[in-house]
Amino acid sequence: MTDEDDRYYHVDGEIVPASEATVSVDDRGFRYGDAAFETMRAYGGTVFAWERHLERLEATCDALSLAHGVTDADLRERIDATLAANDLADAYVRLSVTRGVQPGKLTPQPEVDPTVVVYAKPLPRGGLEGDSVWDEPATVRTVETRRTPDEALPAGAKTHNYLNGILARAELRNEDGTATADEALMCDLEGHVAEGATSNLFFVRDGTLHTPTTDGDVLAGITREIVLESAAENGVPTQEGRYDLEDVLAADEAFLTNRTWELRPIASLDDREIGGGPVTERLSRLYDERVERACYSSR
Amino acid sequence: MTDEDDRYYHVDGEIVPASEATVSVDDRGFRYGDAAFETMRAYGGTVFAWERHLERLEATCDALSLAHGVTDADLRERIDATLAANDLADAYVRLSVTRGVQPGKLTPQPEVDPTVVVYAKPLPRGGLEGDSVWDEPATVRTVETRRTPDEALPAGAKTHNYLNGILARAELRNEDGTATADEALMCDLEGHVAEGATSNLFFVRDGTLHTPTTDGDVLAGITREIVLESAAENGVPTQEGRYDLEDVLAADEAFLTNRTWELRPIASLDDREIGGGPVTERLSRLYDERVERACYSSR
Repeated sequence: MTDEDDRYYHVDGEIVPASEATVSVDDRGFRYGDAAFETMRAYGGTVFAWERHLERLEATCDALSLAHGVTDADLRERIDATLAANDLADAYVRLSVTRGVQPGKLTPQPEVDPTVVVYAKPLPRGGLEGDSVWDEPATVRTVETRRTPDEALPAGAKTHNYLNGILARAELRNEDGTATADEALMCDLEGHVAEGATSNLFFVRDGTLHTPTTDGDVLAGITREIVLESAAENGVPTQEGRYDLEDVLAADEAFLTNRTWELRPIASLDDREIGGGPVTERLSRLYDERVERACYSSR
Repeated sequence: MTDEDDRYYHVDGEIVPASEATVSVDDRGFRYGDAAFETMRAYGGTVFAWERHLERLEATCDALSLAHGVTDADLRERIDATLAANDLADAYVRLSVTRGVQPGKLTPQPEVDPTVVVYAKPLPRGGLEGDSVWDEPATVRTVETRRTPDEALPAGAKTHNYLNGILARAELRNEDGTATADEALMCDLEGHVAEGATSNLFFVRDGTLHTPTTDGDVLAGITREIVLESAAENGVPTQEGRYDLEDVLAADEAFLTNRTWELRPIASLDDREIGGGPVTERLSRLYDERVERACYSSR
């Protein structure tokens, strides 16, 4: 484990102290948020579901026409080097790939000299024996901010253009800066529930697991994908669709997913109590078992 | 005039060589595009329409709940210092204000230690006697990318979340990286013409000047605002509304506006020739006269 002050990042091929890790103000990642990123977790020194993250990173870069030219192996090496430099086995890892500095103006040039940044910080494993990252089930509120539609910015792209989620979260803020909830639930422009600012939404009704479809304006979260697979493999009926807020409010169980939280039960939505339950618990355990198999079984 | 290599920027209160001007990779401006900006022009050492830029910057910051705490005078001093350091009188100036580095996660904290960056580069005056920044009237093409709706990101906010415009511009690119047009015209989700990636649209039909309304998903460009005022003051009928592409294609004249281009006639839209004309020329001259009065009359 490392203190904030002696943490290391990986910037443009070099390990540097986090406090000295910088990018040019001309970098398009800074000027325009013109960059792709992935948030990952390492458990016991192994990045969980690395191949899936790589695949989604490439999908984001394709959506942005950002041909960064860095090999998969090179990206992986930079992450491993960052974990090693920080002496971290259980960690939060973020990988950002920007379009770098380009001559001229807004129009992106095909020749890319990307800026690659790897962030890492300690994040103890929850899972089968440990504690969760979150202290309590999540309180969730719906917000006015609508999820950016796919027609304006491809919904499947995970980019540095994150103001949509920030504005959603800012709506939760009291005057004194404290938050009225843990997560902001955004609806799409048609009023269907879409996703949280940093999480996907699931709910259980009459034993069936439901989640908003990625045919709509919803990011295809990797934790979301794994939960759906686990459910299908273990006989939990699943349905992806377009849902109204009322559908969620009437649910027997509900939870959020993302890389950091894994599965986090929803205590309440707009002050209506929902909570986790047997399906949520079962899926959480199945998720932990996957982590166990993927990251620890070979040791 | 300065070469790219010995240009200076102003970062966080210090004049620094552009090549050494950086921000932390933890700056929210980099991680999330969580920042406001303004693009300005200085003519003869004076920033044109500074008060309007200041007002819009504050409107953007309000939309982002970004209370940066830097006084108007301080911002102005940083710009003037940057122009002086570069020995520039006629310049492109960009001012960026980010939410800085904050502890914790996505949710913005009310206490802000902003990062303020001033960019400057030579941009000779066009205007009454000089040459325009652009060589030719603009070729324009409509694109598939839809302008981000106000419900997802306030349309009046000028932020570092600029991928929407970048994706629009990327659609203009040939395989070899050359562009099929100078500007990408985006429609809103309902199919009405909205704006270019970096410009507002105007067209003239039967002597009336039309432009898409900022009640829709359109940035209130400052050049746009000045053109509308000049038209009204000089007896040119104006109308702001929601228009179809066909309305523009059938126009007698059409032009684009932004700080850099000022007024730029549209040579063609989707290969249909339109061109400038007497109204465009008159409004260009009126604009130049405003610049003359504002930036040169006191010398």
